[in-house]
Amino acid sequence: MKSSQKINHFKKLLGEEKVDGILISSVFNITHLTSYANFSSEEREAYLLITEKSRYIFTDGRYAEAVKKQIPDFELILSKGENTFLKNLEALIKKHNIKSLGVDENDLRVSEHKKIKTISKSLKHIDLGEIRSIKASGEIKLIETACKLGDEVFTYIIRNVLKKGITEKEVASEIEMFLKKRGSEISFKPIVAFGANSSVPHHESGNKKLEKGFVLLDLGAKFENYCSDMTRTVFWGKADKKQKKIYKIVKEAQEKAVSEINSKILRSTQNDNKKILANEADKAAREYIIKEGFETIPHSLGHGIGLEVHEHPFLSPKSKDILKEGMVFSIEPGIYIPDFGGVRIEDLFVFEKTGLRRLTKSDNSLIELR
Amino acid sequence: MKSSQKINHFKKLLGEEKVDGILISSVFNITHLTSYANFSSEEREAYLLITEKSRYIFTDGRYAEAVKKQIPDFELILSKGENTFLKNLEALIKKHNIKSLGVDENDLRVSEHKKIKTISKSLKHIDLGEIRSIKASGEIKLIETACKLGDEVFTYIIRNVLKKGITEKEVASEIEMFLKKRGSEISFKPIVAFGANSSVPHHESGNKKLEKGFVLLDLGAKFENYCSDMTRTVFWGKADKKQKKIYKIVKEAQEKAVSEINSKILRSTQNDNKKILANEADKAAREYIIKEGFETIPHSLGHGIGLEVHEHPFLSPKSKDILKEGMVFSIEPGIYIPDFGGVRIEDLFVFEKTGLRRLTKSDNSLIELR
Repeated sequence: MKSSQKINHFKKLLGEEKVDGILISSVFNITHLTSYANFSSEEREAYLLITEKSRYIFTDGRYAEAVKKQIPDFELILSKGENTFLKNLEALIKKHNIKSLGVDENDLRVSEHKKIKTISKSLKHIDLGEIRSIKASGEIKLIETACKLGDEVFTYIIRNVLKKGITEKEVASEIEMFLKKRGSEISFKPIVAFGANSSVPHHESGNKKLEKGFVLLDLGAKFENYCSDMTRTVFWGKADKKQKKIYKIVKEAQEKAVSEINSKILRSTQNDNKKILANEADKAAREYIIKEGFETIPHSLGHGIGLEVHEHPFLSPKSKDILKEGMVFSIEPGIYIPDFGGVRIEDLFVFEKTGLRRLTKSDNSLIELR
Repeated sequence: MKSSQKINHFKKLLGEEKVDGILISSVFNITHLTSYANFSSEEREAYLLITEKSRYIFTDGRYAEAVKKQIPDFELILSKGENTFLKNLEALIKKHNIKSLGVDENDLRVSEHKKIKTISKSLKHIDLGEIRSIKASGEIKLIETACKLGDEVFTYIIRNVLKKGITEKEVASEIEMFLKKRGSEISFKPIVAFGANSSVPHHESGNKKLEKGFVLLDLGAKFENYCSDMTRTVFWGKADKKQKKIYKIVKEAQEKAVSEINSKILRSTQNDNKKILANEADKAAREYIIKEGFETIPHSLGHGIGLEVHEHPFLSPKSKDILKEGMVFSIEPGIYIPDFGGVRIEDLFVFEKTGLRRLTKSDNSLIELR
């Protein structure tokens, strides 16, 4: 989507939500609308305000020079001395006669809301969660490139890094450094879990040394702010019977979810009213694992990805999201057995007219090393 | 502070705020109370609930195993299927007869507040911003170690990395990789600015190659979750007269702020009622720079640091924070001249009985390279 299309999307939202302006606070929504990605994701450093006729960016002197150069289509409103963000916003609310102001309810903090409430009586909570869920072809290309980097680092780790005595932490470091050298970076802290540690879905890579059995690698790269995410579980040495069985079922569970979606995509061309519910894809994989006698997946089946590693759509039992063309998401079933180990297989897919296309290309059949 | 002391601090808060329970959502507050640092800082993955007699941690299956092992003094409440976080919280509100519930107002999102409001009529917004501002001696030691890593990487960059043709981005990468190899990591994306780029206080390191003039390096390391932060501005080649003048004034501005605080620390031993206001330290440096004929500093003079790079106390014109023994904060004046360049000198200090002690040890006098 071009910048102007994204802005038009917001202008349409003004009408739908019946507000005179929308205050955008999420740093990822700000990057989406401005292509500027240098604000902190952990602190409040900027807001955007979009009205029918104008768009503004609020920030402080640290970013003034950069914003002037890199975000010329938003008018810069500088917080400086007495002219705090709140004072500046109040002036614009008056100037544009904003009676009802929409706020980014999934991002704005309670304390910020309280302050803004003192200058604008009518605040409307708007869920902007889905504005980034359908990707433009340019965005998909960036995610594909990030996936390719993820594939490369996976191959590098398997071929050159895994060896007797290496620790989880060291492997996690190697993943980061490999991507750094390529001018990329990790999209999240890699999860490296050896042996029984793989039974903790979000294991914190530690000092455990490589041993016979499970090697779970969950990693992602960034390319021009877009993220990838992939999990592979391989075996150091030969997998035993139980390990092989778990692997097979997880892989089949992923295939169940993919066919569930694909068959609906094919049917939907005949009947446009057929909605493809994210929770039904989740159900297909989840029930298969339960039917095979294992515990339910202790996490969602999958999640959208883009500027954030986890964003809409969410493939979970409670999700109300509808899967649509242009969405990019993970499908990542897992079976985890405490004190034994676990298997997760995660790939990214893009929803296309004819079905899902896999973006992570690394082999996901059972790999035994040594 | 030991874990039990931190919990007692919260129990005291229950009385002061007149609430029956406090729901803690900030991932840094969670790390502070549990010493567990593996939850994402960008997504909601856990909450804590502290009441007079109990403490709970809410999370999902991805973290269940880890939380059981690593946070044994909090009872694990698992979100699973129908038992969502909200349902679980509702049950505990009933069980403990919580009439008034405090929430972490600087962290909780508007949409979360709305949901929690449906199960607890009386929510009280609590500002937990200052609970981590006074550091225990153990925490100060960790920050000191992080500062030492920052000093080491600065020396390494100056001695081994800066050379003709290298880009800002490459230097930023080298900073990251150096720390990785030491088992540490960056506490924030390093700012590397060459030449006129140094006039942008939060410049995004790019493809500019090293040239004669300003080299601004703003970097920090992490040690056991605690952060450091330091800025040095050095010169590639000889500094000219104007550059030298700016450097001198920035350095003197830092000294003004330090003596402002130190002289008050000395006086306060005679008169315990004397409060040391963070905004007065800011004023001392800021007014000195203006008096010398330059623009006011386009950012705060400094900030507290600990689990987060920026936390209370804030040394800014509007700050109401009071500086106290045990606080660790930066003092970082700067002068920035668009299209010419800028100088910032940032050091971390700990507030001790006898005055400020500098934790970042790198030389901060004018350094000319080559």
